[in-house]
Amino acid sequence: MKMAEEVILLDALPSSFGMRVRIALAEKGIQYEYKEENLVDKSPLLLQMNPVHKMIPVLIHNGKPICESLIILQYIDEVWNHKSPLLPSDPYQRSQARFWADFVDKKIYDCSKRILMTTGEVQEAGKKEMIECLKLLEGELGDKLFFGGETLRFMDVALVPFYSWFYSYETCGNFSLRAECPKLMAWVQRCMEKESVSKSLTDPHKVYDYVLQLKKRFGVD
Amino acid sequence: MKMAEEVILLDALPSSFGMRVRIALAEKGIQYEYKEENLVDKSPLLLQMNPVHKMIPVLIHNGKPICESLIILQYIDEVWNHKSPLLPSDPYQRSQARFWADFVDKKIYDCSKRILMTTGEVQEAGKKEMIECLKLLEGELGDKLFFGGETLRFMDVALVPFYSWFYSYETCGNFSLRAECPKLMAWVQRCMEKESVSKSLTDPHKVYDYVLQLKKRFGVD
Repeated sequence: MKMAEEVILLDALPSSFGMRVRIALAEKGIQYEYKEENLVDKSPLLLQMNPVHKMIPVLIHNGKPICESLIILQYIDEVWNHKSPLLPSDPYQRSQARFWADFVDKKIYDCSKRILMTTGEVQEAGKKEMIECLKLLEGELGDKLFFGGETLRFMDVALVPFYSWFYSYETCGNFSLRAECPKLMAWVQRCMEKESVSKSLTDPHKVYDYVLQLKKRFGVD
Repeated sequence: MKMAEEVILLDALPSSFGMRVRIALAEKGIQYEYKEENLVDKSPLLLQMNPVHKMIPVLIHNGKPICESLIILQYIDEVWNHKSPLLPSDPYQRSQARFWADFVDKKIYDCSKRILMTTGEVQEAGKKEMIECLKLLEGELGDKLFFGGETLRFMDVALVPFYSWFYSYETCGNFSLRAECPKLMAWVQRCMEKESVSKSLTDPHKVYDYVLQLKKRFGVD
């Protein structure tokens, strides 16, 4: 890493998308300034740096913003390519890592909203679909140590932050992920043995407190 | 391109996402077998090659499937890197091309569904948001010839297929994109001067016929 590089992360602690970026920066050994955003009163800096979506995380590298967590991961991987590659070098393997990370973005977040922020049949359907999705991911993991093979890679970084939310899913949805997806939970534990992950993930109980605040604000119980 | 490579595209003519892949393959000069899918009676091959989403387009390269159009574009760009690069080499420029292509996926398709498949206030809101999005894209284009600068690149390939749908948006939504976004429409014309684009895009009137079939099937008028 060159001297005098300025790296700033606009983030919010409970965000799985922010945690992805924190893990990637830790894997690459990049020093950065962490700025916590208040999502109900966004900073002028956030609005200036991500005027299109107005959402965290935003990585600001030498004054230039990069938005959307999976795009940030690829940027980090391309700029700091001296260690811990996130994407494999083979084009087909790269496409598969991107495919499964995209699957997480398209499915897991949507299911989680239904589990956490709805009740009754809609919540039940969200829970059923979440379990199906996680079982599909478990099948994709197979007998590998990590989605990336022998070590943590792009898809692992994309998925593991949701572990911080699993306790909330289980508590709000009244089910056990350890019972449903034991192999996936063993993978979580392997990820958590890495400091880049364990230090980047927000405590599941703090995420649950945040969920309770959200439910109260939107009148869901 | 090596001999004996087998490239198959599972696609459906009205799909903007499929058109992206057709343009990219044409830009790279790749010969391929085109297989039209019937989306109301999907082939066993499609279900086998994309069991997760069961959606076109799917690129099958030497028997291995790649799904999701933007992921396919990146795969094509990485495998056939001898000509017509789609993504720039600079990591920041790459991140920006990915950001705007992702914006198209997140916004344009959603707005188009509301314009085409709803009525009343929901349709009006979709139309208003579509125009806002296209004006934002027009601002991003600025005075450049293409989003990629001097020539057609990743973001151009991601966006221009929606031109095949503009006539349907205008007819169903009763507005004029030429009046709202003249610079964007001039960009469309520049893209259409390229054979890779003009031969890959489906006739807007055929797309409109398809839209009318959809509206009839779902009882929207």
